[in-house]
Amino acid sequence: MIFTGSHILSVEQFDRADIERIFQVADAMAPYALRRRVTRVLEGAILGNMFFEPSTRTRISFGCAFNLLGGEVRETTGFESSAITKGESLYDTARVLSGFSDVICMRHPQEGSVAEFAEASRVPVLNGGDGANEHPSQALLDLYTIRKELVSKDRGIDGLRIALIGDLKYGRTVHSLCKLLRLFNNIHVTLVSPVELAMPEHIVEEMREAGHKVVITEDLPQSISSVDIAYSTRIQEERFATKEEADLYRGRFRLNQAIYTQYCEPNTVIMHPLPRDSRAGANELDNDLNQNPNLAIFRQADNGVLVRMALFALVLDVVDQVDKCSRDVNWYNSLRTL
Amino acid sequence: MIFTGSHILSVEQFDRADIERIFQVADAMAPYALRRRVTRVLEGAILGNMFFEPSTRTRISFGCAFNLLGGEVRETTGFESSAITKGESLYDTARVLSGFSDVICMRHPQEGSVAEFAEASRVPVLNGGDGANEHPSQALLDLYTIRKELVSKDRGIDGLRIALIGDLKYGRTVHSLCKLLRLFNNIHVTLVSPVELAMPEHIVEEMREAGHKVVITEDLPQSISSVDIAYSTRIQEERFATKEEADLYRGRFRLNQAIYTQYCEPNTVIMHPLPRDSRAGANELDNDLNQNPNLAIFRQADNGVLVRMALFALVLDVVDQVDKCSRDVNWYNSLRTL
Amino acid sequence: MIFTGSHILSVEQFDRADIERIFQVADAMAPYALRRRVTRVLEGAILGNMFFEPSTRTRISFGCAFNLLGGEVRETTGFESSAITKGESLYDTARVLSGFSDVICMRHPQEGSVAEFAEASRVPVLNGGDGANEHPSQALLDLYTIRKELVSKDRGIDGLRIALIGDLKYGRTVHSLCKLLRLFNNIHVTLVSPVELAMPEHIVEEMREAGHKVVITEDLPQSISSVDIAYSTRIQEERFATKEEADLYRGRFRLNQAIYTQYCEPNTVIMHPLPRDSRAGANELDNDLNQNPNLAIFRQADNGVLVRMALFALVLDVVDQVDKCSRDVNWYNSLRTL
Repeated sequence: MIFTGSHILSVEQFDRADIERIFQVADAMAPYALRRRVTRVLEGAILGNMFFEPSTRTRISFGCAFNLLGGEVRETTGFESSAITKGESLYDTARVLSGFSDVICMRHPQEGSVAEFAEASRVPVLNGGDGANEHPSQALLDLYTIRKELVSKDRGIDGLRIALIGDLKYGRTVHSLCKLLRLFNNIHVTLVSPVELAMPEHIVEEMREAGHKVVITEDLPQSISSVDIAYSTRIQEERFATKEEADLYRGRFRLNQAIYTQYCEPNTVIMHPLPRDSRAGANELDNDLNQNPNLAIFRQADNGVLVRMALFALVLDVVDQVDKCSRDVNWYNSLRTL
Repeated sequence: MIFTGSHILSVEQFDRADIERIFQVADAMAPYALRRRVTRVLEGAILGNMFFEPSTRTRISFGCAFNLLGGEVRETTGFESSAITKGESLYDTARVLSGFSDVICMRHPQEGSVAEFAEASRVPVLNGGDGANEHPSQALLDLYTIRKELVSKDRGIDGLRIALIGDLKYGRTVHSLCKLLRLFNNIHVTLVSPVELAMPEHIVEEMREAGHKVVITEDLPQSISSVDIAYSTRIQEERFATKEEADLYRGRFRLNQAIYTQYCEPNTVIMHPLPRDSRAGANELDNDLNQNPNLAIFRQADNGVLVRMALFALVLDVVDQVDKCSRDVNWYNSLRTL
Repeated sequence: MIFTGSHILSVEQFDRADIERIFQVADAMAPYALRRRVTRVLEGAILGNMFFEPSTRTRISFGCAFNLLGGEVRETTGFESSAITKGESLYDTARVLSGFSDVICMRHPQEGSVAEFAEASRVPVLNGGDGANEHPSQALLDLYTIRKELVSKDRGIDGLRIALIGDLKYGRTVHSLCKLLRLFNNIHVTLVSPVELAMPEHIVEEMREAGHKVVITEDLPQSISSVDIAYSTRIQEERFATKEEADLYRGRFRLNQAIYTQYCEPNTVIMHPLPRDSRAGANELDNDLNQNPNLAIFRQADNGVLVRMALFALVLDVVDQVDKCSRDVNWYNSLRTL
């Protein structure tokens, strides 16, 4: 795809070359995310960070990524302050807000809303999550993390062995990740969930049709015993009819250090889209894993900034200018590590 | 008036020369709003964007305008987080907040509150709407749009023929626009509303006393048949006692492309302060007008940024320095058009 | 203490030399807070301004301080948008948010939460208030104000005579201020409150053990008759079981201009942590004091920006570079006074 001026709405719009281009640019963003250097490449540009649904981490991750490129952020959070409640169409909202901003990130509870908004927008729109539908930057940061973790072990994504664990029915991140993995070769996916929360059949079919191996199981120890990545997910309580129904599944397939030590190959990487549920009895990833160097969940969040910087730089066509507008940083955090 | 250090509280404070000065500065802001150039003239300055009532578009428009001049924005939205709920006076709030900022934009549900706040403020205050009272930057951007649309037809504001349509009782923008139009010559205003939602008598009187022609009618086709501008407004549902009462008037005086084609002179400009109500049966401006090049409603919103940049530059006395602190922009949106 | 990279969680972590260092840096920030100069020393740095409890003034004060050093601010206000409601631990929240920011300010309703958060954070954390526990930047700005007001009278903090008035039980600012005053010599504190809202016994003990004189009284006129500072506080209504219970104490120990004139020494300085309750019958500091040049309550708020700038510059280790990255300002407010 041509990135300049494009909307980023769905993982379906990428081919393998696109993914590799995004990851190459994300790699180049590291000196800025690490605060070794600062760039002004987007000085004067404005991100419209439009979150019509509560969010802290995704909203702030997008905002930070834009700030780190030198741009400014104007934002909204929640619906109450929106003209939409006065009957305004998404078309009008998009026409107006795109007059203020150079690029828009948008989250909205309604499936398809971000694409509808993008059609009327005069600037590129990045989908920050439209209900249960898509959240492409999350899928990209997950795949980018997998790549980085494997590369540090002299491996690439081709031939990946991954277990996806938990609520595979409602968790949009695992759906999108599967769609991205289809673009690679010889992937082995093990799906671990209660039968009621199984991965949608069409996603399984698509993986198989693309020549990948998919195993469906409820046996956690077996499933994590020979994988590169164990990717755990939270029960999406908010998608269930009642809290009680969600509680039926909470706490199934919990991973902790003892299970990890007993069953996993050395250096199996643990991932999770976050937030993880840390309440007693619910915690799908136990806190005793926090000292495990293969727990990659916070590196995932860190990588999100790199991937989002890459998306901004690509759609605004400044990749080649980032370094030219940069200089060294000399405050305390210029010593930080990723 | 002398702009430097002044509050912008009401359209009543301007004379014709003031208006023309604001519009001249707004014109000069176009390269920045268009992202052809970027300026740092207000680097280090802080806008206190104090919205004690929900707002997305006006709040973000002010914030963007300040960012485009190189300044930073700190803001609040809604009341819940305010010391006012602990019994703090507007005087105290103003004294404290004006210690943080270089200029303050304020919206507040209570009429007169922004003027009271301004009295205690140590920095210029721009009224972003105080209840049903005033919203001067909206009136300025409306008039600026009228001027720009007419100038493109080799005309000026003098001699303007305009129809104001819809809820003329509660719509503060049409009140303020009439007050501004009084400053010009030979204006012909047609007021189209249900009798119950008629323009307040004193505004009609003032227009007539200033020598302008005012026609009051309920005949939409006739009223729009020989005007330069058809300015439609939304039923201000939130000002009615009940939704049912508002519904009585909703959907009266709807304008669509068929009516436009049948009754309007060619190139009649359609305006609206936005948001327009796009719900079926309510839509005062039909979506089938969206492709009509004379639909100026989104140009209005775009012009709001220019007018607000002009107000900031004037009250902070940096008009002559904007260009001196500027350079070309070279990211994707530097190709955009207004 | 070594400031570089440190958390600022409690007034207990400072010794007298630390306090004096903070105040020395705060003094050096005046040209920037006064908008005589602008600095880019923290260009590219990001403050995570995490307010998990409503706040306008403290949140904006921190944000402005960071902007005035050239940094950017990403923020959240309120809980609703937080992953914490999905069961996320403070540990996880801290690990994630500290990946985005260079320094974090945090307010949270739960005592000890900010310290817990800081333990997991990879960047310095500044406590912006954790329930009834601590609010160290407020205590520092109070003491900084006392010092500035006294220095203008050729005095220092040693030998200070101060009356603390009002709700001394729930007001965390007076607790913290007492802890800071212990570090100085020969302080004379008069505590004026209803017996039910008395200063906690352990704080009184600590003051006395440090060799200071503490007098407890309910006699307002007597207590303010020979002090340098009369520090009034609001009834902390939100800490009482019912509004009715709080009302029992509201309006006790009110200070107005007549009482001031009759009982106070000339130039007695009046302070208050703000907001003050200005509702009739409740107002602990009457509005008729607003013209009294010794009313220092707004200078307190102004000083908060200086103190917070100093804390940021110290923990990020840029004190010596602030001036090097600076230039003169030439917009309207460069004429303002503190």
